[in-house]
Amino acid sequence: MNKLYITAIILVLFFAGCKQTDINPQNKKAKYVFFFIGDGMGLAHVNLTEAYLSSLDSVIGIQKLTMSEFPVFGMATTFAENRYITGSAAAGTALATGFKTSIGTIGLKSNHTDTIFSIAYYAKQNGMKVGILSSVGINHATPAAFYAHQSKRNQYYEIALQLAKSNFDVFAGGGFIDPKGKNDSLPTAYKITENKGYKIAKSTEDFNNLNSDDSKVMLVSPVLLSEAELPYYIDQPDDFYTLADYTKKSIELLDNKNGFFMMVEGGKIDWAAHANDGATVVQEVIDFDNAVKVAYDFYLLHPDETLIVVTADHETGGLAVGWDGMHYESNFAILKDQKYSLGVISDSINYFLNSHKNITFDNVLSFGEKYLSMGSLTNKETNQLLSAYNEFLETEVEEDFLYENINILAYTWIEIFNQRAGIGWTSHSHTGLPVPVRAIGAGSELFDGYYDNTDIPKKIAEAIGIKMIQ
Amino acid sequence: MNKLYITAIILVLFFAGCKQTDINPQNKKAKYVFFFIGDGMGLAHVNLTEAYLSSLDSVIGIQKLTMSEFPVFGMATTFAENRYITGSAAAGTALATGFKTSIGTIGLKSNHTDTIFSIAYYAKQNGMKVGILSSVGINHATPAAFYAHQSKRNQYYEIALQLAKSNFDVFAGGGFIDPKGKNDSLPTAYKITENKGYKIAKSTEDFNNLNSDDSKVMLVSPVLLSEAELPYYIDQPDDFYTLADYTKKSIELLDNKNGFFMMVEGGKIDWAAHANDGATVVQEVIDFDNAVKVAYDFYLLHPDETLIVVTADHETGGLAVGWDGMHYESNFAILKDQKYSLGVISDSINYFLNSHKNITFDNVLSFGEKYLSMGSLTNKETNQLLSAYNEFLETEVEEDFLYENINILAYTWIEIFNQRAGIGWTSHSHTGLPVPVRAIGAGSELFDGYYDNTDIPKKIAEAIGIKMIQ
Repeated sequence: MNKLYITAIILVLFFAGCKQTDINPQNKKAKYVFFFIGDGMGLAHVNLTEAYLSSLDSVIGIQKLTMSEFPVFGMATTFAENRYITGSAAAGTALATGFKTSIGTIGLKSNHTDTIFSIAYYAKQNGMKVGILSSVGINHATPAAFYAHQSKRNQYYEIALQLAKSNFDVFAGGGFIDPKGKNDSLPTAYKITENKGYKIAKSTEDFNNLNSDDSKVMLVSPVLLSEAELPYYIDQPDDFYTLADYTKKSIELLDNKNGFFMMVEGGKIDWAAHANDGATVVQEVIDFDNAVKVAYDFYLLHPDETLIVVTADHETGGLAVGWDGMHYESNFAILKDQKYSLGVISDSINYFLNSHKNITFDNVLSFGEKYLSMGSLTNKETNQLLSAYNEFLETEVEEDFLYENINILAYTWIEIFNQRAGIGWTSHSHTGLPVPVRAIGAGSELFDGYYDNTDIPKKIAEAIGIKMIQ
Repeated sequence: MNKLYITAIILVLFFAGCKQTDINPQNKKAKYVFFFIGDGMGLAHVNLTEAYLSSLDSVIGIQKLTMSEFPVFGMATTFAENRYITGSAAAGTALATGFKTSIGTIGLKSNHTDTIFSIAYYAKQNGMKVGILSSVGINHATPAAFYAHQSKRNQYYEIALQLAKSNFDVFAGGGFIDPKGKNDSLPTAYKITENKGYKIAKSTEDFNNLNSDDSKVMLVSPVLLSEAELPYYIDQPDDFYTLADYTKKSIELLDNKNGFFMMVEGGKIDWAAHANDGATVVQEVIDFDNAVKVAYDFYLLHPDETLIVVTADHETGGLAVGWDGMHYESNFAILKDQKYSLGVISDSINYFLNSHKNITFDNVLSFGEKYLSMGSLTNKETNQLLSAYNEFLETEVEEDFLYENINILAYTWIEIFNQRAGIGWTSHSHTGLPVPVRAIGAGSELFDGYYDNTDIPKKIAEAIGIKMIQ
């Protein structure tokens, strides 16, 4: 008896003592998972935002965003199976399923036959609730990669129907692109989604009335552009619902004893970068980080069981915090003088054009003062603007970016404005640069190092403690 | 007695058991430290190199460099005290001493009065041997920050005299810039260095005869450009000593029972990036990584006691792996067709100009075929070249980059060549982008996360287990 008793004490102390030294949290499973994807958000987009925020206090340096306070920093390559510079469909599929695929493909291997399932699907299979959020159309490439399987990313209607069948718990942010199909002739996808048991909340009142008793919810912003996406943050009045608001509401709807997986996309960082519109990029990154902050506040309440991963699908624009004409100088603080996105400024100039017979060069100069507080121009800037004005007089040319047609006068003003800030761009498309991965919480140590985007969902699965079997 | 005996058993088992679970190696001290600085080497410079290497095998993706195999990846901000976009002196001082200073300052605070000492100095104080290696002048900004204290980085002679007094064990790679002062009138710094007890090895024979019995050695490349720096790797015959050779020899000279600290700078990645010469950047990164590989081989022999940290002082060129005119396409494999650096091509064209009365546009076209295998040109490319040719006829203009004057015809050929590869640049100066930090070995876990460049030497000191007291 006595010997057994002593042996028991020895063993208890032995294991108790060992437990105390097990300070490595890597055995803690992630019960609450936030997967943030800043579309097009490269290293430079975040750094520019942080340098801008610091410049507002006239301090040379950075003011860290919430995502940059995370202790783990990794880097992921982004290339698609058939092109080094990826697109949102192939990259979204890689981040969702752990497989490379071809450009434009959603949730299928590049043979367009083999269906591949996302980490959201496996989380749901394992009893977690699932939420998919985006500031752009909820059937756009990035969110689609988490629930749909289509050979072409622009099969928006078919993607919407797959959303309706997904059985995921919450969709929030943007609405459906092509809700009645490309020819606007099919039964609306909203109705079909409702028929599959989803409550669709479109108004402010709907939003406020939702609570944790509601299951299967589609939460659509009351204010949408082109039927589907939220306006740019820079253009939004203060009382608009932001990505942060949708994140907060979704936590309320998803929180349950079996945990949840939530993907949140900041979709328009990419769009502003396609247009090389620096100030709008900065505001979109701030909007996105505000949503990360909501997740971080949740993490602080459940630090042992929450994992937050923040990354991007690719870099857009070849953005650099430095431009040739400024040499080693920068002036980020002027970005606060831009009150609207390039798209809105372009629309305003087009509106002016409609209500006047013509646009004089004096009119052009007045736009710079009105929209960007440009003050007097250097000779070089004047010539740059004159050259655009002459092109405009010849053809009323519009620059065609992926998501926007922009008046060349507006474009040139923003170009000069970016140059003055010391911001350089190499492209209106994506680039092949790897993207940062920031992480905090349960399993976050898995995200250190330099790896491929297909590794990310596998690491999330490992952190949760589930398997993705394709 | 019996009780004491049992208590002893309990305690022994208790601590023995705990020790077994202490798998975290962070308590191992770094005895052998390699600090690699790729001057101007941003995220894109490494990624472009890895994509290029993969493209040689016709594989879309990357072929990882040695530095990219390291398990720890962090990111460091680079801004100087008085300018967001830093320079090599202020950044070198931050990386060496852990203090921000002003642009152009070496080893002093920005008041130019307070002397600050480097991690190399403290390593030496603590009994480790110290080596400082560079592919550029050994009194250039980055290496100088580890042993010198000057208010102006171009006080090369004064810096050389401080090298002679440093008492560090090995200097290797480039030679002295301005060895006799700016007016070429002072006693040669080489002689002064010898008088301070250094053996100066300049020939291949000297190199081969050095061994671990030699203390205080200055190892200067037998082939130097502008008196001080190694030729670009792309321009070197196979039998030249490379940065890897100097790293290997320095290990042999420094290895001792008290350990060593070695700083190795790849100095001309920056220079090639200033000139926006992509293929030369890629070859410089490969050359630099070959030196990292030498350290990695040493690490494999002493994994518990070796720390390797690889980072950069800043990004140069606003390099992006993507250029507007190519949209989403790239063609990295063509970079192998460039056999010489832009500088050598420019010199060749200038030589041609000296031996001919004039240069016809047909001559210009022939240069593209000769140096870059360009084949036929698009209309846009022809116009780009014609425009440069017209400028050349007017003024024989040379583009003036930080370290090179380049014939505009050569520059334009390289510009077109980079565009075809799908490489974009925003600047001929530095940018403010943060730089990757890669690490492996004892204490490497300290280098995860997102921090400032001034944190890096402090982390190295912590890994070694010494204090930097200023």
